[in-house]
Amino acid sequence: MAAHSPSLLIAWQLNNKNVLIVGGGEIASQRIDSILSTPASITLVAPLDGLSIRTTEHIVSHPDRITYHNRLFSGPDELENIDMVLTALDDSDRTREIVNMCRAARIPVNAADIPDLCDFYFGAQIRDGPLQIMISTNGNGPRLASLIKSKVQKNLNGTEGKAILKVGTLRSMLKGRAPGVGGDVGRRRMKWMAELCNTWEMEELALLDEGMMVKLLDQGWEKDCVPTPEEIDRSLKRQGQSQQILIPSIIGIVSGALFVTCLVVARRR
Amino acid sequence: MAAHSPSLLIAWQLNNKNVLIVGGGEIASQRIDSILSTPASITLVAPLDGLSIRTTEHIVSHPDRITYHNRLFSGPDELENIDMVLTALDDSDRTREIVNMCRAARIPVNAADIPDLCDFYFGAQIRDGPLQIMISTNGNGPRLASLIKSKVQKNLNGTEGKAILKVGTLRSMLKGRAPGVGGDVGRRRMKWMAELCNTWEMEELALLDEGMMVKLLDQGWEKDCVPTPEEIDRSLKRQGQSQQILIPSIIGIVSGALFVTCLVVARRR
Repeated sequence: MAAHSPSLLIAWQLNNKNVLIVGGGEIASQRIDSILSTPASITLVAPLDGLSIRTTEHIVSHPDRITYHNRLFSGPDELENIDMVLTALDDSDRTREIVNMCRAARIPVNAADIPDLCDFYFGAQIRDGPLQIMISTNGNGPRLASLIKSKVQKNLNGTEGKAILKVGTLRSMLKGRAPGVGGDVGRRRMKWMAELCNTWEMEELALLDEGMMVKLLDQGWEKDCVPTPEEIDRSLKRQGQSQQILIPSIIGIVSGALFVTCLVVARRR
Repeated sequence: MAAHSPSLLIAWQLNNKNVLIVGGGEIASQRIDSILSTPASITLVAPLDGLSIRTTEHIVSHPDRITYHNRLFSGPDELENIDMVLTALDDSDRTREIVNMCRAARIPVNAADIPDLCDFYFGAQIRDGPLQIMISTNGNGPRLASLIKSKVQKNLNGTEGKAILKVGTLRSMLKGRAPGVGGDVGRRRMKWMAELCNTWEMEELALLDEGMMVKLLDQGWEKDCVPTPEEIDRSLKRQGQSQQILIPSIIGIVSGALFVTCLVVARRR
């Protein structure tokens, strides 16, 4: 059975894309949930009298994201400017017709409850900022997928998303210092970032701030090594201490000079 | 930046599909790994002198799965009968050209190392039979994805894949008894399966065999309840015991009848 062969799990991009959802029942509202968490626009085609409460709520609360048409799916014209189609209908013959139109227009399509007609399946998802985890049973047991999801979720400590964000920022800063796609510099960047992630704990990465990132690049990247969090911390403290000495010294010198200037000026008068 | 917006994680189907990989280096060999674990055929276009050792190994060990062309990507004709394209080139201008050809032909494309050109990203993956888990950092930190992957993997106990397979088989048997897509019967099936998965432990589901599944359907589905593993076990033992009584009884009766028949026959002579 098609539902049992291994899939390619991928993170599909929906920037500036339009997703058409056909049907307005409970499953349609779950599909709307999934798409609302991406940047895509939604076009929803379903007769008003078949809308679930949650679908209605979605339409009302997201007029900027959802364009709703109170009608049955009318034909291939509905597919114009559409990048992905999700059907959630009880009528499997009609679903098959819509899927065929999508195939003709080469638009990826998911047909709820009919795995054989799907270009892709959904799965249970975990999200923590930029971290996304998907659990798929390849159509064998959606309920088990959500049980495994809870199990996985319990074992993440909540710093993962933050750590990923910080590492992303550091990587952008590094690309600023050492630009270029691929090649030697790309490989060196990748190697240095990997070493950092292997040496630092997730919790330590999550605590990185901009000052620490600059230090890391100055004392790590520039010298081709990866300092420990303690080294970065010590070096920032030393910098702080030397500022504590420097500022009073500067104030002292300036006041001294001012004093002497005043004396000289006073004497001249 | 595009790489940072949330993706839609999906399980893409590659039954009877052809995936074109352009480039033969280290990243290309990782792409081949990913696709070999699906049912797709691979077309690989890359000059021989740029192949990594692993890519060469793949070509040699999977002549049934990989069609190799020793040449540079030549133009739009390469895209004929192709369902997905993965580029793994150092030349970002050439990559952009290939991506544009894919867009024109509406073929999903991933361009290694250039997130802005990708229709989809890859992520760290875990596989246990029908169970697949993907960890994506949305382009923020591939190294962290693989660290989180190890963390997740440690917390799965290895029965999950088996449990999913067993539940899949039970679901097919149930669909045989109570067929139909969607509607009332679909909802009742879904509800019963969900209740079973909530009541039974993953380890218990993994131990299901065909006899137990038949019992579960007879005593559970037919009576609209979900028996515990202990109830199924007891009922199977009872059945075993009654067979232990039944078989000797039948043998007894048959031997008795045979004995009498022999006597009668003997007497008549």
